[in-house]
Amino acid sequence: MYRNDIVRIGRKPVMVYVTAVLTCVAGYHKVIIQARGQSISKAVDVAEITRKKFLKDLRVDGITIDTETMKGDDGRPVGVSTIEIELSKP
Amino acid sequence: MYRNDIVRIGRKPVMVYVTAVLTCVAGYHKVIIQARGQSISKAVDVAEITRKKFLKDLRVDGITIDTETMKGDDGRPVGVSTIEIELSKP
Repeated sequence: MYRNDIVRIGRKPVMVYVTAVLTCVAGYHKVIIQARGQSISKAVDVAEITRKKFLKDLRVDGITIDTETMKGDDGRPVGVSTIEIELSKP
Repeated sequence: MYRNDIVRIGRKPVMVYVTAVLTCVAGYHKVIIQARGQSISKAVDVAEITRKKFLKDLRVDGITIDTETMKGDDGRPVGVSTIEIELSKP
């Protein structure tokens, strides 16, 4: 099922995702930022910019890292790191 | 003071840091992986490769994210995201 409280980080500029996180928090008081591979750095940037510049009372509830197995270009399975950052507003 | 149980992620290949983490855990039973900016994705890769391929009983004790203020190219302060991943072996 599509969940409205998840923001998936991709190739768009950081501020696009910061806006998505702010919208999410306004509606649900919490948000989960998900990213994998090279987007993991951007996910941390999004969480930090939102917390430090926009919503100073936003709390990091938990951060989990994992590995997802995907099909590589040659068809063989490759592991890709993932991150989930849970934020909530008291 | 220089701490031997910290591995700082830089521009070297991932396996260099995985080896450093394995050496650290062998001596101290714990390690802290630190990274900032674009190296954050690599830090998660290092933690995940070490856990999934080499030391399956390695536990993630905590992950913290923060912002460090550094001087940019034009002398003005810029925020850089940081991550710390604490791992330990029971």
